[in-house]
Parts: sequence; C-alpha cells; structure tokens
Amino acid sequence: MTLLTPDQLEAQLRQIGAERYHNRHPFHRKLHDGKLDKAQVQAWALNRYYYQARIPAKDATLLARLPTAELRREWRRRIEDHDGTEPGTGGVARWLMLTDGLGLDRDYVESLDGLLPATRFSVDAYVNFVRDQSILAAIASSLTELFSPTIISERVSGMLRHYDFVSEKTLAYFTPRLTQAPRDSDFALAYVREKARTPEQQKEVLGALEFKCSVLWTMLDALDYAYVEGHIPPGAFVP
Amino acid sequence: MTLLTPDQLEAQLRQIGAERYHNRHPFHRKLHDGKLDKAQVQAWALNRYYYQARIPAKDATLLARLPTAELRREWRRRIEDHDGTEPGTGGVARWLMLTDGLGLDRDYVESLDGLLPATRFSVDAYVNFVRDQSILAAIASSLTELFSPTIISERVSGMLRHYDFVSEKTLAYFTPRLTQAPRDSDFALAYVREKARTPEQQKEVLGALEFKCSVLWTMLDALDYAYVEGHIPPGAFVP
Repeated sequence: MTLLTPDQLEAQLRQIGAERYHNRHPFHRKLHDGKLDKAQVQAWALNRYYYQARIPAKDATLLARLPTAELRREWRRRIEDHDGTEPGTGGVARWLMLTDGLGLDRDYVESLDGLLPATRFSVDAYVNFVRDQSILAAIASSLTELFSPTIISERVSGMLRHYDFVSEKTLAYFTPRLTQAPRDSDFALAYVREKARTPEQQKEVLGALEFKCSVLWTMLDALDYAYVEGHIPPGAFVP
Repeated sequence: MTLLTPDQLEAQLRQIGAERYHNRHPFHRKLHDGKLDKAQVQAWALNRYYYQARIPAKDATLLARLPTAELRREWRRRIEDHDGTEPGTGGVARWLMLTDGLGLDRDYVESLDGLLPATRFSVDAYVNFVRDQSILAAIASSLTELFSPTIISERVSGMLRHYDFVSEKTLAYFTPRLTQAPRDSDFALAYVREKARTPEQQKEVLGALEFKCSVLWTMLDALDYAYVEGHIPPGAFVP
C-alpha cells in the first residue's frame, strides 16, 4: 500500500462512484426511462421510504460519536434536513408526499409491513456500519452524495417526462437535495482528504464508499428481482 | 390477539415453514434438480460459507445472554458442532471441504472478498437479531431447523444424482446435520412452547421465525438474481 495524495484519494473515490454508484443499475435505468409501471414505481418508493426514514437514525448514531461541537453542528444539520423543523417539513415528510401521490396508504408505508427483507437488511447494515466502524469510515460512507445531484436530475426529468402519475409536487423531495447533497459532500470530502493520512486510513475510506455503494445497489437488485423479474418474496408488498 | 395453546402455536410455526422456508425458493429447486452449472453451485457454496462461518458468532452472541448454566450448556453444544473439537472438525471445516471439492481457493473463500453484499447484510441481520431481540425471539429464530432435515435429504440426493462435481465426501457437511438439527430444534420448540405464555410473546415467536425464513430466502434471491439471471453486482465473485 502506498500513501496517496489528497487529490489521488479523491480521484479514487470518484472512480468508485463511476463504477459502483446505483445510477448504473438496470432498475434505475428502467425507472428513469419510463420502463416501469405504476405498481413498480410504488414498490420502489415504498422500499426507498425505509432508507429515508432511517437516515436520521444513521446520522444521530454518528452524531452521538462525534467528539467536538463543531463536528456535531455540521452533522446535526443533516438530521434537521431530514426531520424538518415542524410537522410536514423535512425530507422524510417530503418522501411521504411521493408515496401519497403514488396512491399508497400512508399508514401502510409507515408500518414498514410490505418492505422487501433485503431493503431492511441493507439499510440496517448502513446504520450499523456507522455505529461500529471508525468515525472516519462513517463519514466516508456518506460520500455517495458526491454523485447524487446527477442521478436526481436524471430521475426527476425522466420521471416527469415518462409518468403521468408523478408531478413536480410529488417529486418535491428531490429539489432541496440538489443543494443539500453538495453542501454535505463538500464537508465530508474535505474531512476525509484531511484526516486519511495513512495508507490504512485511505483504504478504510475507499472501502467505506464501496460499502455504501453496495447498500444502494443491493436495494435495487432486490426491487428488480421482486418487481421486474416477478419473484416477490413471502410477506412483501403485492401491488 | 388470542392466546394459543402450545399445540396451536406449534401448528402456526409449522405453517410458516410450509409457506416461507427456502426449500420453496426457485434457486433451491434449480440446485436440487440439477439445473445449475458448476459455477453457479460454486457461487452458492461460497456465499453460504459466510452463513456457516457466522453461525458460531450468532450462537456465542446468544450464549452470552443466557441466564443459566443449563441453557448455556445446551447452546454451547451448537458452537461445538460448528467449530469442532480440533482443527479440521466441525461444520465450518466441513463446509470448506465442499468449497474445496468445488475447486474454490480456500483463502479466497475465507477472505469473504467475493460475497454478494446481500449475503453479508442478511447474515449480519441474523447475528444482530439474536443480539438485539428478546432471548425468546432469539431462540425462536433457530426454529428453521425444524424444516432442515427434509431440505438436506433432498439436497444431498439431488446433488449427488445430478452433479458429477460433488461426492458424498464433499457433501459431508450435511450428514451430521441430520441428527444435530432435530436435537436442536426439539429443544428450541419445547422452549418456545413453554415460555411463550402471552399473545404478545407468541406473536414475537412467530415473527422471529418469519424473520429467519426471510434471511435464508433473501440469500437465495440474491444468488438467483446474480448468478442465474446474470446480474452480478460490482465486486462479487465472477466465475
């Protein structure tokens, strides 16, 4: 192992995104290209809800481990973004506007009863990673946000073009993410560029991003297998 | 919710097995019926290795929580079954005889480098379940062993009949399981029949078995999607 410069480390992180971020997944291509029916988009939104709903838990788990007020203030903002400042605001509430708009019963969505087990296991793996790994790895695992503005733009424009059952209003979740994600990933990227000072730490950072890409990818594998290939596992949402 | 008699509880547990145990999964049918090629059987054995390798950790996690020597002696035997009494003995070592026999490099298998992320997340979910849920639920989650003698008989006879790359020697893992699993599930079944004395506890027991079935099912979903449908995720074993 050799020590990378910060620029080399960043280049390797961006390479991981280019190869492993879930915009390359066949299910995402189908979602954006209008190849899914409403039931399949419902299944995606229902399962992705669990990811959204657990992000504040993931961030609070890390917040509890951060050693300084400066770091905690930075990380606390992420929880504010997701949970909002009053009822009906924040990313989780905006995701429920999407599931509402798709005709899913809100109590059913929030019950989590119809989740694919793979969704639950993948998202829980992310929360546990942030609890169990180093703070450096936990922060690095958020770096998928480096790549999210591109996928969000593709997703919103593609879905609006192809699906008459979504609207700008129901896709309101995504608009604030276009500014929040770059702000958050700027911080996380600067942090890992500065703090990953040994080959071992740099390997840890790269591994954390690969891990996080695998969380997002596995969620789409399960959706594609269940709702496109038609193998819905026992107990999961049946459209 | 109504209180079930122990016999009614057992009947509901057996019903869950009839509906959700992984012998009903399409990948398992293909495995037993000789529909897979050697590379696909390798992928199954490689991924299933992680399950085998983590079972002692799962059992030790529960062992650490059990309150009496009597319970701990019972549970300790499971670790002995899997880890053996000397090098080369026990279930984990016998599983490696299978991966050896299939031509997989042992260092590669043990490195876990080629695992499907879904395998890792599913198995880890099982270990975490046993750590985080009640002792009653943790013991109940082992009850898939009620159904394993049937699947093992089908698997061994089907694989020996259809695949010239397996032998009785490489399938040696399964023979002791035919006596160990019923002994273990007899204990766990008697335990939950006696200890689940409220509707809430009975619901917990039933939910634990459903959870465990979903762990095994999700592992096969991922294998089928990756190695039969041909969507191998980034970083996983490529035959």
